[in-house]
Amino acid sequence: MASIISVNLPENSYSIHINAGGLNNIGEKASHLAIGKKILVVSNPEIFDYYGQITIDSLQNQGFEVNYHLIPAGENYKNLESIAQIYDTALKCRLERNSTLMALGGGVVGDMTGFAAATWLRGINFVQIPTSLLAMVDASVGGKTGVNHPQGKNLIGAFYQPKLVLIDPSVLKTLPEREFRAGMAEVIKYGVIWDKNLFEALESAQSIDSLNNFDEALLNDILTRSCQAKADVVGQDEKESGIRAILNYGHTIGHAIESLTNYETFVHGEAVAIGMVAAGRVAVKMGLWTENEAHRQDELIAKTGLPTTIPHYLKVEEIIDHLQMDKKVKDGKVRFILPEAIGKVQICDRISSEILSETLSVLID
Amino acid sequence: MASIISVNLPENSYSIHINAGGLNNIGEKASHLAIGKKILVVSNPEIFDYYGQITIDSLQNQGFEVNYHLIPAGENYKNLESIAQIYDTALKCRLERNSTLMALGGGVVGDMTGFAAATWLRGINFVQIPTSLLAMVDASVGGKTGVNHPQGKNLIGAFYQPKLVLIDPSVLKTLPEREFRAGMAEVIKYGVIWDKNLFEALESAQSIDSLNNFDEALLNDILTRSCQAKADVVGQDEKESGIRAILNYGHTIGHAIESLTNYETFVHGEAVAIGMVAAGRVAVKMGLWTENEAHRQDELIAKTGLPTTIPHYLKVEEIIDHLQMDKKVKDGKVRFILPEAIGKVQICDRISSEILSETLSVLID
Repeated sequence: MASIISVNLPENSYSIHINAGGLNNIGEKASHLAIGKKILVVSNPEIFDYYGQITIDSLQNQGFEVNYHLIPAGENYKNLESIAQIYDTALKCRLERNSTLMALGGGVVGDMTGFAAATWLRGINFVQIPTSLLAMVDASVGGKTGVNHPQGKNLIGAFYQPKLVLIDPSVLKTLPEREFRAGMAEVIKYGVIWDKNLFEALESAQSIDSLNNFDEALLNDILTRSCQAKADVVGQDEKESGIRAILNYGHTIGHAIESLTNYETFVHGEAVAIGMVAAGRVAVKMGLWTENEAHRQDELIAKTGLPTTIPHYLKVEEIIDHLQMDKKVKDGKVRFILPEAIGKVQICDRISSEILSETLSVLID
Repeated sequence: MASIISVNLPENSYSIHINAGGLNNIGEKASHLAIGKKILVVSNPEIFDYYGQITIDSLQNQGFEVNYHLIPAGENYKNLESIAQIYDTALKCRLERNSTLMALGGGVVGDMTGFAAATWLRGINFVQIPTSLLAMVDASVGGKTGVNHPQGKNLIGAFYQPKLVLIDPSVLKTLPEREFRAGMAEVIKYGVIWDKNLFEALESAQSIDSLNNFDEALLNDILTRSCQAKADVVGQDEKESGIRAILNYGHTIGHAIESLTNYETFVHGEAVAIGMVAAGRVAVKMGLWTENEAHRQDELIAKTGLPTTIPHYLKVEEIIDHLQMDKKVKDGKVRFILPEAIGKVQICDRISSEILSETLSVLID
């Protein structure tokens, strides 16, 4: 089962190949791109143990000159220092302007490799092989790359498009279940903001809290629908000046919670899950969304085994204060994405501190 | 005397305003751009002493909320650490996506501010006020931004276009004479690669080794012609995949000499001057250029008071080895820009080590 999604942009369009077992043929796919002869694969030790050799063999079989660079796993290493280390390896391998950085890993590896590609020699080629569900449905589409600032997630970065994204669903078998569920948070997000059918497919499935409950067809369907949703939105607004903001549904409060817990308590998708619950409640309070649909969303999140409440040791005031620092602030107002119906959201920046404060208070454990 | 040059690009076109005394009206010019309310001015202490207050007053008079960030002067500070410090200030000032970084200074300040603008919140607005001749005619046109890697100049960076460039020639009065002459190297370059009339205007001028020898009309003419030359080239090839490479005339060997002398012996333009002499000699040896025209070029460089020889303590072999590491290498071959006639160059990557070695040997002091 395979599908190809085109991400159509004014410049730098590219394709996402969703293809079980496709990793074995990455060399052949890469050989159809105009990406020079030298490839530096960036990965983390665990992923590289699983899939590094397959990738390198496939590339070398097609005549590529391949090196690799490993970054320890985790959001803690998503910083400028890790980028400087990629630069050092790029220099050692004498990467040239037409050479390629290839990300083999989850969102952290993808974001950092993309940023290094965007900024080494003022931009070299970038190919992405996401190995987590989150990276497949989110980070691999849309060209957001970057690292964290000590005081905020993804504050440093660039928009930079890959030449190719290869999604091989068969690599999900080595993904920890917690990471799988975290990825499902973004899948649910696409259901709420864009694709009602996707939402209902997930509602109909008996159990979705583990990869084992997905057959190949359902898995392919949710990957394709999720990537298509994101490609649709990004194709309309590459640089996030308008509609693209809807992809941040659940992320405004999600980012604040991640940051205030030092990226240690929650993985990204878990924080987004809580953020979606919060945004849904705000939407209901604002009279935009029905309680019934908000409840269906919360049920789906809970069914996936994702958290729906804020830990008791966080204070409402510190969350609200943190929102002010988020990069989605515009002229001092915090922007929220709020559902109107399953499959449809609006951008709203007229939310009072009172509504926010009331909503967050109720959600605290 | 004022002129406006349009830099026409597929996306992100912008204007260069050349306007004596224009700095007094930067606020009014900025108010016509859609660049938010917050501006962070980046400068170095000396330049800021001269022109910081004028700039800030003019901006504040138009209602902008202005902060500033100073970086010590010099190529030694053109590194990722300085960028991280700009990020910290950007965070403190709570710059938002529609806020602006404004470079007030020479090439180093411009390149770093541009890179910070390109990578903070994945890209915020950028306005450039170049205060050195070099920055006016080179760095301010074309969107190259970046910092040095410990092992090579400008290896880290991005293409990122400003919203506006303001060139106020009256600020050149505080530029050290050595820096003025260094800027003249790039002006001569435009004469050789693109604009024969510019070259001949410089040849006709009695003396060009100091700003004092330029009347307002000649100064305005060389600024306008130089920026126009660069805008013409960049407009045809924003990302340096083709013709833009001709702007590197004199830079291949120039960069090697700068780097091998630890950026301490020569300022950029002086190294480029030597690089142009070397490239001219290679062109003559290859039978592409006449000895007579190469001689005219060398005379013009000497008349400007720029160096034309390589210091005795550099070895031919180390220069050639360094060229291999330069980012202009493509598939292992070093690319040179070689003149065919005054006003016309070609890109050439079939230069033997022998020719290079012979040329460089002769030029060593």
